[in-house]
Amino acid sequence: MKGVMYFDQAASSWPKPPAVMTAMMNCMEEFAANPGRGSHQMAVKASRVLFETRKHTAKLFGVKNPNDISFALNTTHALNQAIKGFVKPGDHVICTNIEHNSVRRPLEYLKATADVELTYIQNDQQGYIHLEELRKAFKPNTSLVVVSHSSNLLGTIMPVGEIGELCRSHGARLLIDAAQSAGILPIDVQGMNIDMLAFPGHKGLLGPQGTGGLYINPNLDLDPLLHGGTGSQSEAIQQPTVRPDRYEAGTQNTVGIAGLNEGVKFVLAETVEKIHEKEWRQTQMLMEGLLGIEGVTILGPSLGQNKTGIVSFNIQDADSSEVAFILDQSFQIAVRSGYHCTPLAHEAAGTLAKGAVRASIGYFTTDGEVDALIQAVKEIHSQYAK
Amino acid sequence: MKGVMYFDQAASSWPKPPAVMTAMMNCMEEFAANPGRGSHQMAVKASRVLFETRKHTAKLFGVKNPNDISFALNTTHALNQAIKGFVKPGDHVICTNIEHNSVRRPLEYLKATADVELTYIQNDQQGYIHLEELRKAFKPNTSLVVVSHSSNLLGTIMPVGEIGELCRSHGARLLIDAAQSAGILPIDVQGMNIDMLAFPGHKGLLGPQGTGGLYINPNLDLDPLLHGGTGSQSEAIQQPTVRPDRYEAGTQNTVGIAGLNEGVKFVLAETVEKIHEKEWRQTQMLMEGLLGIEGVTILGPSLGQNKTGIVSFNIQDADSSEVAFILDQSFQIAVRSGYHCTPLAHEAAGTLAKGAVRASIGYFTTDGEVDALIQAVKEIHSQYAK
Repeated sequence: MKGVMYFDQAASSWPKPPAVMTAMMNCMEEFAANPGRGSHQMAVKASRVLFETRKHTAKLFGVKNPNDISFALNTTHALNQAIKGFVKPGDHVICTNIEHNSVRRPLEYLKATADVELTYIQNDQQGYIHLEELRKAFKPNTSLVVVSHSSNLLGTIMPVGEIGELCRSHGARLLIDAAQSAGILPIDVQGMNIDMLAFPGHKGLLGPQGTGGLYINPNLDLDPLLHGGTGSQSEAIQQPTVRPDRYEAGTQNTVGIAGLNEGVKFVLAETVEKIHEKEWRQTQMLMEGLLGIEGVTILGPSLGQNKTGIVSFNIQDADSSEVAFILDQSFQIAVRSGYHCTPLAHEAAGTLAKGAVRASIGYFTTDGEVDALIQAVKEIHSQYAK
Repeated sequence: MKGVMYFDQAASSWPKPPAVMTAMMNCMEEFAANPGRGSHQMAVKASRVLFETRKHTAKLFGVKNPNDISFALNTTHALNQAIKGFVKPGDHVICTNIEHNSVRRPLEYLKATADVELTYIQNDQQGYIHLEELRKAFKPNTSLVVVSHSSNLLGTIMPVGEIGELCRSHGARLLIDAAQSAGILPIDVQGMNIDMLAFPGHKGLLGPQGTGGLYINPNLDLDPLLHGGTGSQSEAIQQPTVRPDRYEAGTQNTVGIAGLNEGVKFVLAETVEKIHEKEWRQTQMLMEGLLGIEGVTILGPSLGQNKTGIVSFNIQDADSSEVAFILDQSFQIAVRSGYHCTPLAHEAAGTLAKGAVRASIGYFTTDGEVDALIQAVKEIHSQYAK
C-alpha cells in the first residue's frame, strides 16, 4: 500500500519484482490452461512453465533432478507431506524448540495418534542448538530430524551442514524447514545432506502466495498426502510412482508458479549471497538503532552475529500488539506482534507472557525505512516512558 | 492464446472475466501481505478479501455461515480433506463408477490401508445412477456417500437432492464433488442435504488456478489434513477448533482468492441458471452438428437431455489423442483426449480402449467457435474415411 513501510517480510515478502506480476498476467491472459491434462498448445505452455520453475528452483537448491521437487500450496503443505508421508508408527523424531507450528503440530499429531516418539532439543536463549545435545538425542529408532534453517522469531541460523552429517552418521533423515531461508541463505541439498527441504514461494523466493514446494531425496518414497488425478496413469487406482506426479495430485497453481519462476530467476541473478549480505547489513543497522533506546530489548543473536533479516524486540514491558498497533496507525509501519506460531521459541527467549514485536527486512527494504522504524520506536518509547 | 478456440473448459475455464485479473494485480501491488498473521493495514486488507470471497461463495451455495467454507489448493485437496478427515476404520463408503481419480484414489487408499469397505454403484452407459441401486448399497456401517455432481467425461447430472434424502434416511453423510458443477448448476447445501461440498475455483467459478474449497456441515468435525500455523491459538499444540482456521493451516493463496472473489461475483450477477442455459444450448448445438457426421459417436446423455457443457466423442475408431492433436495443430482448437482421470466411466461408456475426445463449453464460448469445431471434425472425418 502506498506510503506503508513494510517490515513483515518474514510473513510474506513485498513488493515483488515487476516481472513476477507480468508473468502472472501473461499466464492468465495467454495460457491459463491445465498443465499436464491436455496436449494442446495452451496446456503444453502451462506444463512448460511448471517445468522451468522446477528447473530454476532445483538450480538454486543444488537439486540434480528437477522432478525431485514437487509444488505445494505453502510450506505447511510441504512439511505435512514430508512428515506424515515419511514417519511410521514406532519411529522416533527429533526437532528443536524453535520449530514453527507447521512442524510442531504435525509431529504432536503423530505423537498423539500414531505411536511416534518425539524429542525437542533445547535451544539456548539466542536460539542456537548445541550439536552435543542433538547427538545425545539419537535413539536406535530415530528416523527423522526436523530443523528450521532459520528461526522465524529470532533469525538465528542453524548449522545445517553439521546437523546433516550427524544425521547421516546416525542413519536418520534430515528435513529442513526453509521458510525463512529459501532465497536468502545458501542451500545445497547434496552438500548439506538434506533429505527433504520444504520451502515457501512467497517469502525469500519473491513469488506470490499460494506457492511453495518440497524437495525429496530420490532414494526416499513417501506416502502421498493427496491422492487424485495427475494426468498420468489415469487407469491405475494407486497414485503414480513417477515424480513429480506422485506428490502433485490435482490442478497445480499455474499462475502462481509462473510468478514464482520470475521470483526464483531474480534471486538466481542477484545471488543469495548478495541478498543475505544486504539484509544482514540493514539488520545490524536496525539493531544498533534500537539498542540505542533505553529499555528496548532484542531477542536472538547479538549484534555482529550472523542472522537472517528478523529483528524481534520489546519496549520495556509494553504489550507487543499495542506497539505494533501504534506503529501501524501513527507511523504507517507494518510489523507483526504476538507469538509468531512458535510458542516454545518464546519460552526459550523468556517472552511467553508478552510476545514480541517482529520487524523483518527484505531485499527491497530501504535504509530510509530502517531509519524511520528506529525513529518511530524512539517516539513510542518516549511516550511510554512518561 | 490468440487465435486459439478453447474447448477445454472442464479442465480449467478460460478466458476469465477481466475483473479477476484486475483484482489479482491490485492484490499483488497493494496488499499481498499475510492474512490473519498480522494486524497491520495490509494484513487486514488481505484478511478482508478472504472473508469477502468466503461470503460470496457461501451465498452461491446456500451456506449460512461463511466460516464453514475453507479454502484449498484445488478440488483434490478439498476432497482429500473431506474423505481422509471423515472416514474412520471400519466404515463403509459408497461412491459411483464415474468418480474422478480425486475421489477414487483416496477411497482406494483407505480401503487398502485403513480397513475401509468400498462399494461402487454401477452407472448406466449414459452415466446415470439409479436410486434403487444406491438404496440397496447401504449397510449398517455406511458412513459416507461420495457423488460427482456432474460427470467430467459424460456431462451427466446426478439427482443430488434425492441422493441427499436417501443418505439422510440411512444416517450417512453426503460428499458432493462439484468439480464440474460449481458456478454452473444450482447448489443449495441445505436444500440438497449436502454435508460436504468440494469445489474448484478455476473452472465454473471463473477464478485462477490454485484455488478451491470445501464446505463442511457445522455439525461435523473432521480430522485436519494439514496441521500448522493459523495465526490463532499459537500456543496450542493442537490444531485450533475454530473455523475456518481448523482446515486452513499455513499461508493462504490471497492473490488467487482475490481473483476468485471476482469470479464468484460474476457468477452471482449472471446467475447459474443463465450460465447453465447458455452452455446447454451450445452443447445441443455441438451435439447436433457432430451427430450429423457419419461415424461420430457421442458419450453420455442423448440430445435433448439435461447435461453440463461437456461433449465427449469419437470419430469411428480413430485414436482420440490423434484427433485432438490434429484439432490443435491444424485448426487451433484446444480439446482434451484420453481417459480424463476417470477410467471406470470409460468402462461404463465402452471406451476404455481408445479414450475419447472431450470438448467442453464455457460461458465465454461463442456460437462461431462451436461451428468451427463442427466443421473441423467434419474435415478430419472426411480425411479419416478416405
